[in-house]
Amino acid sequence: MTQPPAKTAPNTLKPRLRLLYGSAIAFGPGKAELLQHIATTGSISAAAKCMNMSYRRAWQLVETMNRCFQSPLVLTSKGGSGGGGASVSELGQKVLRLHTELLEELATAPALQKLQTLLAKQPPDEK
Amino acid sequence: MTQPPAKTAPNTLKPRLRLLYGSAIAFGPGKAELLQHIATTGSISAAAKCMNMSYRRAWQLVETMNRCFQSPLVLTSKGGSGGGGASVSELGQKVLRLHTELLEELATAPALQKLQTLLAKQPPDEK
Repeated sequence: MTQPPAKTAPNTLKPRLRLLYGSAIAFGPGKAELLQHIATTGSISAAAKCMNMSYRRAWQLVETMNRCFQSPLVLTSKGGSGGGGASVSELGQKVLRLHTELLEELATAPALQKLQTLLAKQPPDEK
Repeated sequence: MTQPPAKTAPNTLKPRLRLLYGSAIAFGPGKAELLQHIATTGSISAAAKCMNMSYRRAWQLVETMNRCFQSPLVLTSKGGSGGGGASVSELGQKVLRLHTELLEELATAPALQKLQTLLAKQPPDEK
């Protein structure tokens, strides 16, 4: 038997951040992961498979983020039923970088550090 | 007819933040609102009603946040079927304040400001 995966570090809060533009979720953990997989695979359907997500759902996420920003984050070319090629635009790459920066800024926010000092010794589900 | 409510300010992202401790959501928008209503009403059931939430669900949220921190954020006294009295502990008040501070720190994060300059003129749902 191998060692079980490391448990959450004690006294660490993991932020989960979504950014709403109007009532649309312009960006969040799912869209960021999808963009990264599209950049790697060059395909929305392949990216969807990586995330165990339906092609339809992946398209919805792409359409939403494309419409929330000045220009599309994902560029597509026509293809068959499985979907054509896709790539992450320069703007998409910039949004991904800024999203990573934002998560870093959040992780070092003074109020988050203070909240972490108030946590129980262990999360409730790992006692 | 009165004026419709003001639409989202253009080029403004509204962060929605949850803080996970292990796999539990230690704190987030729903728990913050529930705590505020408990402080105002002195009752979990009344607070639940303010949010159109079931009493059972409100109790689940209270139990989770109580177990994620060093001591309970919500103190309860025995009551009838509708639930007894409840109050927000000093630690609960501190967590609420720090959560508000964290949202302020997030709203002024440089990367968020930069992301906002890349938004479409209007959210997709308000065109």
